[in-house]
Amino acid sequence: MSSRINRDRRRFMAAGGTAAVGAAAVAASAFPKPALSQDVLRLNMIMAWPKGAPGVGVNAERFARRLERLSGGRLEISFYGAGELVPPFEVLDAVSGGTAHLAHSSPYYWAGNSQALHFFTGIPFGLTANECAAWLAYGGGQELWDEVYEPFGVKPFFAGTSGTQFGGWFNKEINSLEDLQGLRFRIAGLGGEVMRRLGVSPVMTPPAEIPVALASGAVDAVEWIGPWNDVAFGLQRMAKYYYTPGIMEPGPGLEIMINSGVWADLPEDLQEAVRTAAHATAFETYADFIYHNTMSFSEMLGESDVEMRTFPDDVMEAVASEIVTVLDEFSAADETFARVRESHDAFLRKTLAYSPYAEEGVLQARTKFLRL
Amino acid sequence: MSSRINRDRRRFMAAGGTAAVGAAAVAASAFPKPALSQDVLRLNMIMAWPKGAPGVGVNAERFARRLERLSGGRLEISFYGAGELVPPFEVLDAVSGGTAHLAHSSPYYWAGNSQALHFFTGIPFGLTANECAAWLAYGGGQELWDEVYEPFGVKPFFAGTSGTQFGGWFNKEINSLEDLQGLRFRIAGLGGEVMRRLGVSPVMTPPAEIPVALASGAVDAVEWIGPWNDVAFGLQRMAKYYYTPGIMEPGPGLEIMINSGVWADLPEDLQEAVRTAAHATAFETYADFIYHNTMSFSEMLGESDVEMRTFPDDVMEAVASEIVTVLDEFSAADETFARVRESHDAFLRKTLAYSPYAEEGVLQARTKFLRL
Repeated sequence: MSSRINRDRRRFMAAGGTAAVGAAAVAASAFPKPALSQDVLRLNMIMAWPKGAPGVGVNAERFARRLERLSGGRLEISFYGAGELVPPFEVLDAVSGGTAHLAHSSPYYWAGNSQALHFFTGIPFGLTANECAAWLAYGGGQELWDEVYEPFGVKPFFAGTSGTQFGGWFNKEINSLEDLQGLRFRIAGLGGEVMRRLGVSPVMTPPAEIPVALASGAVDAVEWIGPWNDVAFGLQRMAKYYYTPGIMEPGPGLEIMINSGVWADLPEDLQEAVRTAAHATAFETYADFIYHNTMSFSEMLGESDVEMRTFPDDVMEAVASEIVTVLDEFSAADETFARVRESHDAFLRKTLAYSPYAEEGVLQARTKFLRL
Repeated sequence: MSSRINRDRRRFMAAGGTAAVGAAAVAASAFPKPALSQDVLRLNMIMAWPKGAPGVGVNAERFARRLERLSGGRLEISFYGAGELVPPFEVLDAVSGGTAHLAHSSPYYWAGNSQALHFFTGIPFGLTANECAAWLAYGGGQELWDEVYEPFGVKPFFAGTSGTQFGGWFNKEINSLEDLQGLRFRIAGLGGEVMRRLGVSPVMTPPAEIPVALASGAVDAVEWIGPWNDVAFGLQRMAKYYYTPGIMEPGPGLEIMINSGVWADLPEDLQEAVRTAAHATAFETYADFIYHNTMSFSEMLGESDVEMRTFPDDVMEAVASEIVTVLDEFSAADETFARVRESHDAFLRKTLAYSPYAEEGVLQARTKFLRL
């Protein structure tokens, strides 16, 4: 793959980028200097989101700039938003083929290539983002993810999450399963498949068209992300009810992928820089979404007539039951899916025993008892 | 401060560390090479924990080794466990004075220097680790933390968490506030102060002495960390009841600190390496604790006669009320504490409105409806 890299030999530039520094100048300095090299490696990074998109686009670009700084001038990254180098749904193909070398996206976008990728974004009623990170690092998840992407010539890293999503925007109340029948509901991924089986007509409206679709009545309901991104789309002005919990996506995972050939050719310290920068991005992205979701939610409640609603028990029970059926069917049809699911569910079973005593218990107690 | 650094000029060693590489060899290579420099900067890193301590010690050492790799051979870090270079409770002094240059610990260990540091570890009924990261990055928390440490010549970075802690090990049931009276309870930090006001006799048993103290009856109860570390101490064999939720420490924060003079002298790419490696450590440490707490909890339940218990409502109410009183008193006595608290509580108020619809709602629904 390395022959595809746009490699440009030139003199080393100081990390600050303002002046060329010769070997003599380096030798004269008392302090360790950034990388001195004959070469600069030029990489293209693409993503599934527009440039500057809150949370996802911004943190993807931060990753690229940070990786450049960490490289001490040895990497130069041309950074492209969705559609600038390739269309957003060709991101995997582009990194696989070497048109791009790095990308930021979410694994389930590529489920058409392998349904097993759903587990690395997340499953309805499945692992939260923190739990997914634990499974990846210690429960065998990363090895399985590497294996799923291996035929595509791509190496993946976890890059955080948009946090727990919300359940969606509705203009009529959902008081029972009956109320879902025939509902034109914009919802993606496995959640959409579950909803279809419960009588919904799922619609895969492209993100940019969501506000118009909801405002015009082309769809009856919309599941997008959470308060930060939903309010940015103005959805609180187009629907009366905001439903929770967002059990369809407990903590959807983001990914940074790198072309396997580029990865293999990187010296050890730059491999370390990619891995470290990805994990720092994972940490910072979740913080970004928590902060802005929290603040946007408060503002929205204060400034709109939106009413909060919770899905009724029969809907929750039906979704929890149906997702297991969907996973059973996918497992029967796809050996890789079955193996990833077995590993994922083994850890999920343990978390079902643990989390009521841990995060869940603490959050419940705080809500119930703290008066500020 | 830089004069205190043990600086050692020598020829560049390849990042792999196996062979000296001259400038000619670098020039001949087609690929960007790690840092070429006349200098290697030698740093001491210390920590508040023994070497190899699960979760904390292991991730601290990973940080040090990763930072070396990221530096491409320009940093060499001598890594010391608690007591090897300085005693564990002299970590801040050592980094402040330049005996050590980097450290891994938890901010509340230094509350004797500034009570405001409690907010960066966490407060009973306060922010979880994810929420704390959000407050630090976007809610002004990091700037306040920098300010609190500035007089000590130290710059702090968030380094993750041991996750939600558990409530502690008891040999008698706690059915009401009455049952706390006179109880000799090993508990640290602000939780200990709150317990004292509720009639407990808090005891600050050093970690290594906890198992003997509980087994011998020198203390009646022990709050340590969570299942992973508690089971490693064998506490499940010394007490009958394991109480939750661990509301005293919703997500205690860890820190990596660097001597301010060393920080100021680092070139931009090595500053970036420190910051990035700290944030990657934050992500990975939480994953480590979640995985091992989850697995240890399941194993312990299967192999011991421990019974799970929940603190009764009157105890929870009293703790939630008393912590506000404690914070009020500390605020009245310390202007810095008051300012940090104002910022912390402003974000905590928003999370109280948000989290029931987000993480809390999703976890509750999963526990209630998912059958695997």
